[in-house]
Amino acid sequence: MALIVQKFGGTSVGDLDKIRNVAERIARTYDQGNDMVVVLSAMSGETDKLLGLAGKITGFPDKREIDVLITTGEQVSISLMVITLQSMGYKACSILGHQAGILTDSSFTRARILDIKATRIKELLAEKTIVIVAGFQGADKKGDITTLGRGGSDTSAVAVAAALKADKCEIFTDVDGIYTADPNICSKASKLDRISYDEMLEMASLGAKVLQIRSVEFAKKYNVPVHVRSSFNEEEGTMVVYEDANMEKVVVSGVTHNKNEARITLSKVPDRPGIAKQILEPIANARIGVDMIIQNTRAGNMTDLTFTVPKPDFEAALEIERKVAEKIGAEEVIGDSNIAKVSVVGVGMRSHSGVASKMFSTLAAENINILMISTSEIRISCVIEEKYTELAVRALHTAFGLDAS
Amino acid sequence: MALIVQKFGGTSVGDLDKIRNVAERIARTYDQGNDMVVVLSAMSGETDKLLGLAGKITGFPDKREIDVLITTGEQVSISLMVITLQSMGYKACSILGHQAGILTDSSFTRARILDIKATRIKELLAEKTIVIVAGFQGADKKGDITTLGRGGSDTSAVAVAAALKADKCEIFTDVDGIYTADPNICSKASKLDRISYDEMLEMASLGAKVLQIRSVEFAKKYNVPVHVRSSFNEEEGTMVVYEDANMEKVVVSGVTHNKNEARITLSKVPDRPGIAKQILEPIANARIGVDMIIQNTRAGNMTDLTFTVPKPDFEAALEIERKVAEKIGAEEVIGDSNIAKVSVVGVGMRSHSGVASKMFSTLAAENINILMISTSEIRISCVIEEKYTELAVRALHTAFGLDAS
Repeated sequence: MALIVQKFGGTSVGDLDKIRNVAERIARTYDQGNDMVVVLSAMSGETDKLLGLAGKITGFPDKREIDVLITTGEQVSISLMVITLQSMGYKACSILGHQAGILTDSSFTRARILDIKATRIKELLAEKTIVIVAGFQGADKKGDITTLGRGGSDTSAVAVAAALKADKCEIFTDVDGIYTADPNICSKASKLDRISYDEMLEMASLGAKVLQIRSVEFAKKYNVPVHVRSSFNEEEGTMVVYEDANMEKVVVSGVTHNKNEARITLSKVPDRPGIAKQILEPIANARIGVDMIIQNTRAGNMTDLTFTVPKPDFEAALEIERKVAEKIGAEEVIGDSNIAKVSVVGVGMRSHSGVASKMFSTLAAENINILMISTSEIRISCVIEEKYTELAVRALHTAFGLDAS
Repeated sequence: MALIVQKFGGTSVGDLDKIRNVAERIARTYDQGNDMVVVLSAMSGETDKLLGLAGKITGFPDKREIDVLITTGEQVSISLMVITLQSMGYKACSILGHQAGILTDSSFTRARILDIKATRIKELLAEKTIVIVAGFQGADKKGDITTLGRGGSDTSAVAVAAALKADKCEIFTDVDGIYTADPNICSKASKLDRISYDEMLEMASLGAKVLQIRSVEFAKKYNVPVHVRSSFNEEEGTMVVYEDANMEKVVVSGVTHNKNEARITLSKVPDRPGIAKQILEPIANARIGVDMIIQNTRAGNMTDLTFTVPKPDFEAALEIERKVAEKIGAEEVIGDSNIAKVSVVGVGMRSHSGVASKMFSTLAAENINILMISTSEIRISCVIEEKYTELAVRALHTAFGLDAS
C-alpha cells in the first residue's frame, strides 16, 4: 500500500468518455490498496475558450480577474470526475486549490506556491476517500484565486506529493515519457527509462514541453520521484529522479531543440563600461526574458552585442533596441527570427571531456554554421539557422550514440 | 449618495454584448455618486448545460459535487463583468460567495444563508471599487461550496443588501415588475407600483416566479426595500416594502395561478384517529411537499382524504399512496394532474369581509366548479379544473376591480 499522487492533463479529461477512462484507471490503482490523490487540468480547450472571451472584451484584461475566470475549467473537470467515480461506487471528493490549502504569492496568472497545508486532503485520505484536486490553482493570503501558469497542474501535483510525502507522483500525459530527442523529427529517438532532475530541468527549459519547469524544481527540492507516462496505455514511462552513478556513464542523455527564440544584434556599439546594461535593461523593464548574450570585439573601440528573446516578444524588443541604438550611437539593429537552438544535455558531461568539440565538428560536417554558443555544467547549446534544425538534431543524436538499435 | 445593491439575472448577462449593456447601466448609477455592489447570475443556459453534463454520467449525482460544478457559471460571469467595467475605465473587483463571507448551512443545492461577514466587500467599497459578487453561492463552515437553489441570486442580493444595510436592493429581471396577474393570460393586468412583503411572499409561493421566495423572507426580516425592475429599460418597476395604510384600501392586489400541482384522493378511508398521519407521513418521508389537504366525512364511519403535491412528484406520491391504501383498507386512490390553483391575494383582506364569497360567486357565474379551497389571512385559493385557469384569472381580475382602465 502506497500513497500515490496522479496528474492527468486536459486531453486526458477532454470529454465524458475520456473522464470515464481516467476514472477507471484511478479505480484500478485504488483497488490495489493505494491511497489516491489525483490532480486534474481543465478539459482540453476550456482555458483557451475562456481566455478568448476575455480577449474579446479587451486586449489587456486584469490578471486577477483572468484567474477567477480560467480556474472554473478545473472546477468543472474535478466535479465531473468525482461524479463519475461515485457512479462507479467509489468514495471520492473534489477539492479546489484554496480548499487544498495551496498558498501562493499574489502574482496572478503565474503565481508561485509558498506553502501547502494539506489538512483537508489528509482527513479525506484517512477515511479512504479518493481526493480529486483542481490543478493549476491556488489562493494568496487574502484568499484571492491565483493560477500557476501554463502547465501549472504539473506543479500542483508535485507540490501536493511533496506536502503529503507521497510515495510517487505520476504525471499522465499524451506522450509515453521523455525521449532522447523529439520523435517527430528524429525517428531513431528512444524513450529514457530514467532521467535526473537536473537533466530534466535543462530539457524543460530548452523546449521539451512535457513537464512545467517549476514542477521539476519542486520535485528536486523535495525529492519527489516523478513518473512521466502515457494516459493512453499501461507502459512504464520515464522516472525523473536524483542522478545516480549509472546516469554518469552516459555522456549525453538527449538532444533538444527550440525554435521559439529570435536574436537581435546591435552592431558597432561604442565599447565603454556600462554599455551592456544600457542595452539590456530596457528589455528587462519590458519583462522580456533574455536567454543568450554574446559580445564580440571589433576594431576601433567598437563592439557588436547579440542576444536572444522569445519569438512572441521579438517585435517589441526590436522596437526598444532601435531607440536604444539611437541613444547610444550604435550603427545598426539587426533582427533575425529564423534561428533555432539545438542542445545536448547530460549529467555525464561533468566527468567526460570533448563533448563541445564533438558537437561543433558534427555540425561542421553537415555544413551547419554556428551563430551563437552557450553552455552550462550539463548542457551545450548552439544557435543555428532554423532550416537546419531537424538535420542538426538527427546528426547529433547519431554522433552521441543515442540512435535506437 | 447611497449604497445600492443591484442584481442581474442570467438573461441580462447572456453574452458579451449584454454584459456590456449591464456594465453601462452599473456605470451610470456609479457615476451618480453611489457605492455599488452588483450580484450576478450565470450566463443564461450555463447552469443547465453543466447539469446536463452531470446528468449524462448518472441520474443521481452527488449534491456537493453538483454545487462545485454549477457555481463555475457565476464565477465566469462576474470575472467577465469586471473585465468589461475595467475596460471602460472603472475600478471593479469580483468576489466569490466564500470570499464575500456568505456562510450557509451544508444543504447542498438548496442551502440557507446563516450569516454574512461582508468585511472584504466593505473594504472594497471604502476605496470606491464597484464590487461584483457571484450570486447563488456560498460556503459552509468547512469551506465547501454551496448553492442557494434556483433563483438563489435574488437571495444573495437581498442578503448582501441586509448585511451592508444598503439603501436599496434593485432586482433587474426580464419583466417590468410585479403584475396584478400574468399579462400573458390576462391582457388587462397592470404593473403594481408597490406591494407588501407578505403579499409578495404569497404570490411567490403561488407561482409568480419573479423573486425567489427566500429573498422576500430575507427582505422582510431585515427590512430591505426591494425594487423589482426591467433590465431592458429605465422604467420604474415594483417596490416590495412593508405594508402601509394605502395598501389596505385595496382589497385584492393580485390574482395568481399555479398549474404545477396535482391532487391525490384516497376514498372510503376508515375514519379513525391517526389516519391522516398514516396517509401523509410516507409522503413527507419521501421529501414530497404537500400543499392543500381536505378531509370529507362520508356516511358509515368512512372519510375521503384529498391532498395536492407538486406535479413532478405526482407519480411517486401515487405509488406511495397505493401501498398506504392497501395497508389501511381504503377503497381507492384517485390521481388527477389536470388541476390548477387560482388565488386572490391582498393585505386589504384583513380589514374587508366578503372576499371569499365574491370569489366563489365569480367562479360560479362562469360555471367553474371549485374542487378544493384553502385560505390564509391575506389569500384565498381555489383548486379548479386546469382548462378553466385563464378564464378564472380574467374573471377574478375583473370582479375585484383590477382591470387596467
